[in-house]
Amino acid sequence: MVVELYVVVVYDVAVERVNKVRGFLKQYLNWVQNSAFEGEISEGTFAEVKIGLKEIIDESQDSIIFFTAMSQKWLKKEVLGIEKSEISSII
Amino acid sequence: MVVELYVVVVYDVAVERVNKVRGFLKQYLNWVQNSAFEGEISEGTFAEVKIGLKEIIDESQDSIIFFTAMSQKWLKKEVLGIEKSEISSII
Repeated sequence: MVVELYVVVVYDVAVERVNKVRGFLKQYLNWVQNSAFEGEISEGTFAEVKIGLKEIIDESQDSIIFFTAMSQKWLKKEVLGIEKSEISSII
Repeated sequence: MVVELYVVVVYDVAVERVNKVRGFLKQYLNWVQNSAFEGEISEGTFAEVKIGLKEIIDESQDSIIFFTAMSQKWLKKEVLGIEKSEISSII
């Protein structure tokens, strides 16, 4: 059985690595804000995402937080101000 | 009955307003990353937070996303790299 997770990723990564982090994350999740991605992925893919990011970042300087819910229904999302959904302009 | 919500706030706010947003949010929530706060607050306080932020930001330029869960147990948090918990150095 494939377990789907709803994942929010927020990152604070040094400028020299941030485009690499974004380019990596956009293969799996939707860009929602300058420093945040979200989306639904399987547990296996989530493990892959964490391994991939671990290779890109410097764990002594950068920070990535993952918030995961077993379903999007447990998490309500509200936006104040502009809602971004396009990453192409910054990568 | 007071309903407690577990709230994650991620923001992308112009530099001239970002300290005001941080100073406001730290009255209610815990700073967890450069652009993210989290914590448990009541529904009433959450409404107050949204009203306060609406007054600070420029909704045509800035973006704030709120992810809320009815309880922290529905949301798992994992950190890769450094874990921040101190805001005093930047405000």
